[in-house]
Amino acid sequence: MGNDARLAVSTVIFTLREQSDVDKRAGVPALWTPFVLRTRDPYQDRWALPGGWLPDDEELEEAAARTLAETTGLHPSYMEQLYTFGRVDRSPTGRVISVVYWALVRGAEVEQAVPTENVRWYPADDLPELAFDHRQIVDYALTRLRTKVEYARIAHAFLGETFTLGQLRMVHEAVLGERVDPANFRRSALAEGDLEETGDYLAGTPHRPPKLYRYRADVDVQPGLTH
Amino acid sequence: MGNDARLAVSTVIFTLREQSDVDKRAGVPALWTPFVLRTRDPYQDRWALPGGWLPDDEELEEAAARTLAETTGLHPSYMEQLYTFGRVDRSPTGRVISVVYWALVRGAEVEQAVPTENVRWYPADDLPELAFDHRQIVDYALTRLRTKVEYARIAHAFLGETFTLGQLRMVHEAVLGERVDPANFRRSALAEGDLEETGDYLAGTPHRPPKLYRYRADVDVQPGLTH
Repeated sequence: MGNDARLAVSTVIFTLREQSDVDKRAGVPALWTPFVLRTRDPYQDRWALPGGWLPDDEELEEAAARTLAETTGLHPSYMEQLYTFGRVDRSPTGRVISVVYWALVRGAEVEQAVPTENVRWYPADDLPELAFDHRQIVDYALTRLRTKVEYARIAHAFLGETFTLGQLRMVHEAVLGERVDPANFRRSALAEGDLEETGDYLAGTPHRPPKLYRYRADVDVQPGLTH
Repeated sequence: MGNDARLAVSTVIFTLREQSDVDKRAGVPALWTPFVLRTRDPYQDRWALPGGWLPDDEELEEAAARTLAETTGLHPSYMEQLYTFGRVDRSPTGRVISVVYWALVRGAEVEQAVPTENVRWYPADDLPELAFDHRQIVDYALTRLRTKVEYARIAHAFLGETFTLGQLRMVHEAVLGERVDPANFRRSALAEGDLEETGDYLAGTPHRPPKLYRYRADVDVQPGLTH
């Protein structure tokens, strides 16, 4: 017994980037994601997530990393499996099951990537029309980002181990795609019980420097489970 | 382009059950999981997770639910995708990618299941030798259970919306497979900041009835994200 479905891998990459100054939310960082222009049918000339077919002799995560590097030049230090999308009708050319990986990359990693053709980054809240069900995949990744565990992980990836409440608020603003009231954020962030003061203050701010916080040791901010 | 890998679905089911009184940890509930005896090669006479091949015209979650029902008689009200296992060498008969679903079921659901042949439940901390990489899959599921979000979800599934700290401790004991010191548990559980008192006390305990707690509204205890 078997089946005719084909297996593919795709990758959702997020980075934090300042909005351009023509944007209404200038100064608020936003999540950006790279897409690859499709040069053939189906969905020719639409943007798609980086990815490709799974060779029989290649591990899933290796295929995800290889196809990401080939299409975008990116080599994230760590990728995690996000979800497997397999709806019967998600491709017009027969059933395709896509095992999707995701990663957060810092700006420096994006700048180190060798530029490749047909790649463009879009802000997550202003996407073009995407091929297949890739819009649904990005939306799912965004929903996952908006969970408590992921906020801790994003803060860890983009800010490091310690950060001010203002920096943490900007991460939340980027993930939510909207401004967050500073006083409300401060109150609710401290009420959560996940943060603790480090006892230090942000360097380089002589007048009333803001306190530095970290996530308590029992909050999992490390990359997820590996296999 | 395509590939020869075949697609399968498997399911990890957990329920909470009292240990038998011959067990050293009598009275501590444990997690139990159903397995199906393989009646053909590969791995004939080994126990395996419920599952089967994915038909081309069946959605992933439907195939998982159907194969679970056919093999074990179980019909969980809700199943969630756990992870996709696809190591090149995980099956001796060519590459198989298994999309694994999981569910928590209450004892009543287990009792309602029509018994089927070749099914046996094992405690998660005392498993037989399993077929393929199914031991690794169960271990991964157990690791996921031991995260903060999952504890809240397990408590919700097995205890309901409100519970005493003693009941919550028993859930932790079941998941960890070992006794937990009541005083330490009480201190750390309350320090987490995720629990709040309901103002009510456990009914039917006239002498010093224990307080009832619930998870705060911002702790996600609902079944996960659906598609």
